[in-house]
Amino acid sequence: MKALIYQGPGKKALEDRPLPKIIAATDAIVKIAKTTICGTDLHILKGDVPTCKPGRILGHEGVGVVDSIGAGVTTFRPGDRVLISCISACGRCEHCRSGMYSHCTTGGWILGNEIDGTQAEYVRIPHADTSLYRAPKGVEEDALVMLSDILPTGFECGVLNGKVRPGDSVAIVGAGPIGLAALLTAQFYSPADIIMIDLDANRLDTAKRFGATATVNSKDGRAAEKVMQMTGGRGVNAAIEAVGIPATFALCEDIVAPGGTIANIGVHGVKVDLHLERLWSHNITITTRLVDTVTTPMLLKTVQSGKIDPQRLITHRFKLEQILDAYDTFGRAASTRALKVLIEAA
Amino acid sequence: MKALIYQGPGKKALEDRPLPKIIAATDAIVKIAKTTICGTDLHILKGDVPTCKPGRILGHEGVGVVDSIGAGVTTFRPGDRVLISCISACGRCEHCRSGMYSHCTTGGWILGNEIDGTQAEYVRIPHADTSLYRAPKGVEEDALVMLSDILPTGFECGVLNGKVRPGDSVAIVGAGPIGLAALLTAQFYSPADIIMIDLDANRLDTAKRFGATATVNSKDGRAAEKVMQMTGGRGVNAAIEAVGIPATFALCEDIVAPGGTIANIGVHGVKVDLHLERLWSHNITITTRLVDTVTTPMLLKTVQSGKIDPQRLITHRFKLEQILDAYDTFGRAASTRALKVLIEAA
Amino acid sequence: MKALIYQGPGKKALEDRPLPKIIAATDAIVKIAKTTICGTDLHILKGDVPTCKPGRILGHEGVGVVDSIGAGVTTFRPGDRVLISCISACGRCEHCRSGMYSHCTTGGWILGNEIDGTQAEYVRIPHADTSLYRAPKGVEEDALVMLSDILPTGFECGVLNGKVRPGDSVAIVGAGPIGLAALLTAQFYSPADIIMIDLDANRLDTAKRFGATATVNSKDGRAAEKVMQMTGGRGVNAAIEAVGIPATFALCEDIVAPGGTIANIGVHGVKVDLHLERLWSHNITITTRLVDTVTTPMLLKTVQSGKIDPQRLITHRFKLEQILDAYDTFGRAASTRALKVLIEAA
Amino acid sequence: MKALIYQGPGKKALEDRPLPKIIAATDAIVKIAKTTICGTDLHILKGDVPTCKPGRILGHEGVGVVDSIGAGVTTFRPGDRVLISCISACGRCEHCRSGMYSHCTTGGWILGNEIDGTQAEYVRIPHADTSLYRAPKGVEEDALVMLSDILPTGFECGVLNGKVRPGDSVAIVGAGPIGLAALLTAQFYSPADIIMIDLDANRLDTAKRFGATATVNSKDGRAAEKVMQMTGGRGVNAAIEAVGIPATFALCEDIVAPGGTIANIGVHGVKVDLHLERLWSHNITITTRLVDTVTTPMLLKTVQSGKIDPQRLITHRFKLEQILDAYDTFGRAASTRALKVLIEAA
Repeated sequence: MKALIYQGPGKKALEDRPLPKIIAATDAIVKIAKTTICGTDLHILKGDVPTCKPGRILGHEGVGVVDSIGAGVTTFRPGDRVLISCISACGRCEHCRSGMYSHCTTGGWILGNEIDGTQAEYVRIPHADTSLYRAPKGVEEDALVMLSDILPTGFECGVLNGKVRPGDSVAIVGAGPIGLAALLTAQFYSPADIIMIDLDANRLDTAKRFGATATVNSKDGRAAEKVMQMTGGRGVNAAIEAVGIPATFALCEDIVAPGGTIANIGVHGVKVDLHLERLWSHNITITTRLVDTVTTPMLLKTVQSGKIDPQRLITHRFKLEQILDAYDTFGRAASTRALKVLIEAA
Repeated sequence: MKALIYQGPGKKALEDRPLPKIIAATDAIVKIAKTTICGTDLHILKGDVPTCKPGRILGHEGVGVVDSIGAGVTTFRPGDRVLISCISACGRCEHCRSGMYSHCTTGGWILGNEIDGTQAEYVRIPHADTSLYRAPKGVEEDALVMLSDILPTGFECGVLNGKVRPGDSVAIVGAGPIGLAALLTAQFYSPADIIMIDLDANRLDTAKRFGATATVNSKDGRAAEKVMQMTGGRGVNAAIEAVGIPATFALCEDIVAPGGTIANIGVHGVKVDLHLERLWSHNITITTRLVDTVTTPMLLKTVQSGKIDPQRLITHRFKLEQILDAYDTFGRAASTRALKVLIEAA
Repeated sequence: MKALIYQGPGKKALEDRPLPKIIAATDAIVKIAKTTICGTDLHILKGDVPTCKPGRILGHEGVGVVDSIGAGVTTFRPGDRVLISCISACGRCEHCRSGMYSHCTTGGWILGNEIDGTQAEYVRIPHADTSLYRAPKGVEEDALVMLSDILPTGFECGVLNGKVRPGDSVAIVGAGPIGLAALLTAQFYSPADIIMIDLDANRLDTAKRFGATATVNSKDGRAAEKVMQMTGGRGVNAAIEAVGIPATFALCEDIVAPGGTIANIGVHGVKVDLHLERLWSHNITITTRLVDTVTTPMLLKTVQSGKIDPQRLITHRFKLEQILDAYDTFGRAASTRALKVLIEAA
Repeated sequence: MKALIYQGPGKKALEDRPLPKIIAATDAIVKIAKTTICGTDLHILKGDVPTCKPGRILGHEGVGVVDSIGAGVTTFRPGDRVLISCISACGRCEHCRSGMYSHCTTGGWILGNEIDGTQAEYVRIPHADTSLYRAPKGVEEDALVMLSDILPTGFECGVLNGKVRPGDSVAIVGAGPIGLAALLTAQFYSPADIIMIDLDANRLDTAKRFGATATVNSKDGRAAEKVMQMTGGRGVNAAIEAVGIPATFALCEDIVAPGGTIANIGVHGVKVDLHLERLWSHNITITTRLVDTVTTPMLLKTVQSGKIDPQRLITHRFKLEQILDAYDTFGRAASTRALKVLIEAA
């Protein structure tokens, strides 16, 4: 089968690979229909993710059809149309039982990282019963692909951790795909204001169309000041960090209101300054989270009932044979204006 | 009346002052029976608290008897025995209504800071209806003094924010009065382990007597390692920071388990490093809080019913005339082994 | 001044009355701009509310302008445009401090019940600081009148108590004004389905326009069966009772899913059957609540930001002189299709 | 092997039965070390549980050693010492994922009910990975047996659902084993008062020894009056129903404070009266629950750390051969003063 292989820092190729096989009784093999590329895949390609070794098939998102199952799989049958979660969860360990699938002792984010992933014609899914979701009737595959990772990530790490409530003021720092996923799902809770902050005017335009009530271009270094003005000097109830660098985290520290929350989504490469000399008395909460995908059933219902249209995140479409072009388009998002690129494998 | 006056950095004196008077209709004048000294008073004396100007009567803790009330006070009458909260709360502003009294727009921590305090024979209490608490029958004054600040601070900022639950592993970094207050109140929730960490062997001994299940002397720089060993490599569900310096916050970052909480109580003078390059995916929560004293009614019930004995925190007793000695004893806690020093004003 | 007087069961009249005066330091006198009639006013007129004595000025909803204030009022000044809460709250007692204003020891629902109310040119508001809300700029008075009672009641007793979440299935039994208020505010949380149940086809049509995803006419006694069918046999996550009779409560018991909630809003005159022989093992929650109006600040923000348009509840308009006509129209809602009738006093 | 067989209403016998065998890949066979009898077993014997057919081996509690496992079991190995949960949970279905194991679509309470149970030498446990718990070192088997059902039932259905907090007033109606389990676990949260109510003076004495702060003998029909007196007319924050008849539920309705909770544990055979004509405005919560055993890991930690000593519930001990005597003793609890009877199978 065709598969996109990580060949070490800076190198990738579309190669022929043998079909994956059932290894454990709890495995399923899924024939991929559609997949996509995540910002994390670009991190891997930069060499930033040491757990991912050369030779690995990348990708942790996708929808497909169950091809075969191990002896211990009871929830799915061959032929079932399924959504693949980016997080593999055994459903048995202490962490899974407390809803923290991201820290599953034999799972977590392993797809396209520690084991072969979804940017291929077939993929082996461990812990299939608790890592796949039946695709609801009437929901398009394109929408489903957005539920593998980006939508639950924006929702769980940003919106739920940010405790967004009706009438709240919310700021989202970073209008890339993940920030936009937070923007879309924040609207589930009817905040009064969602202020979107980014350096890129195009992305801010997109944010406006996606429901931002205000945008701030942070190019001039005055974003904090502007947000404080917009909120009558109060700051925001939830500051969602969706970039992953010290400057954007610092911005969140500057704009969070007393009693508010900084919900970090960004993947950080270096430490940040936490200004406790100022914030120790501000009654704030800071959260970090690797997505658990525990809200996938909830998100499926919101998509099915039309409360959210995640396909809006898809800007480009490719065939699996064109996946190198897809990477190129996604990698040059500033100029291509790519958000999510959809890749059809079948 | 006699009162302890802050005279600028490094200087204090016991002086004669005129009796305080009702200024606003919501004020009460309270005749102090007993008061105490807080670590924050020492901060003021170092010149670290710019809102507190020379000439100020210090102190924000105490019990006493209502002497007179303004026209708008409906809850108390002269003669009522009352607990004074360290936080003045109007009960009307947005923050008070959401239970965040610490950020009351016309109150907060102002006693012995922006207005004259309790280390005197009389004190004026603004917003008396919502800043005083009726002393329950049968509860000793000594116990009540511990409820002005230290007990709610340890409880709200440490234990409640740390979400301590039955069976949890808890670490408290810092076995000073505030860490010990967290230790006492953490036991309300029956955690399995409470590991107390400090540099001072005496304080760790005290912690053992107060209910710590284990102690770690951090002198050798191996505290994190030891805590990880004690918790089977998992770390603690709640790491309570009760010191206020970068090293102790860093220790909390090292020992908090995935899904756990760092509850900061310490008053920090400088920023700390937040290692998001490691913690971004650990599903942790960090909280900061200036005590709100919203749990005072709850704490009064726990004292009244004998669930906690806060008098254990009192190590020394003085008369108001001896308050300079009291400061000396409290200021040299390492050698005097002082925790809380009780001062009788009447 | 003109005022609508309850004259005992079945009797009411528009009479001339002296202007109200400040009694306590915490009172304010408000000149009514607009008021409305509540279903509870009809209950009083039937003689069902023994706390309300003949001679009482009715009404507990309204907006107006502060005319004068007592010495203890600090939040408002004469001339301030204010929303009147149906619940008077001292902000000081144990219940107020825990956010349960409905049970304020010197307040609660007393307006137009135990003390004179708002269906008049002027009204005295006790505990003014914590029972009035500043009218935000740009929000129309008509919308504000809906925030005195009906919107917080639907929201707090129905939606918040019902724990409505994104993707949930919700049923609201009763499409009268209060059920419709629950319908409008349930949408803050993006449930997948809101099934509206009533006997009146007109009200169900209105419900559809207000956002119900499905309606069930319960005339044929098969409502439970139909709801179970609509939910794939599961039942609803939240069943909101907005009528107040045994039959509608029984319907809620029949349709609540395991793990779900029955949130009672209805004012009941007789006991109901609770089928614990069936429900003891269903992991359900049943809640009751007299509105606390603690969410008024939140609701004001949702109105101000356009997340909800409560004026849609207003079907008829009258002058204060025509208030008997207003009562007539509101009292014959089945034929007049009245929801809320707005009464202009100035 | 020897097994206790339900032979239809009023009939039971100790019989020889073939050893159970693995049926599904997720099964384990456990050799029983110790088991016990539950009040529900008596219900079955009365013919009150139609899902339990004659011929069934009774029992849903126990500890033992894993004898063999199916191909899909990954968490346990033969030889592992395990606690058997009374609830079988697949860990995969919608209900299991939301922590409501009691409603597992292929599990729930099936042991000793729909499938053969634990009052035997061996038992087949379906969904073994998520229905067994590793016995922690140093915890005695006797204590563990109390964690199969009675302790999590008292804790989850009574204490957690009752939202018991430090300083609260709690009443537990019924001082049988389940009420006493609620009493023991309520103390995890340091309530100020736990009032135990029963008709049996012996059981009330036991309750005193187990930590009740007050007891009320309800024989004279004045229990409600007495509880109101004890709570200064306020009522209790949590009223825990641990009997299951209309009179005891009615008592809970009479003593619950505004804002409080009635947490039902009792298994009810008939409907009860819910006095909404009085309670609609009292802001109360009523909960029902079949135990989910989601807190088993937490409870194991509290036992292991000595926060609770569940062996205190054991009053009598028998060998499996004497199980008919054990039933007799347990069935005549009023005269034998039996709480839990321990049965050694090996």
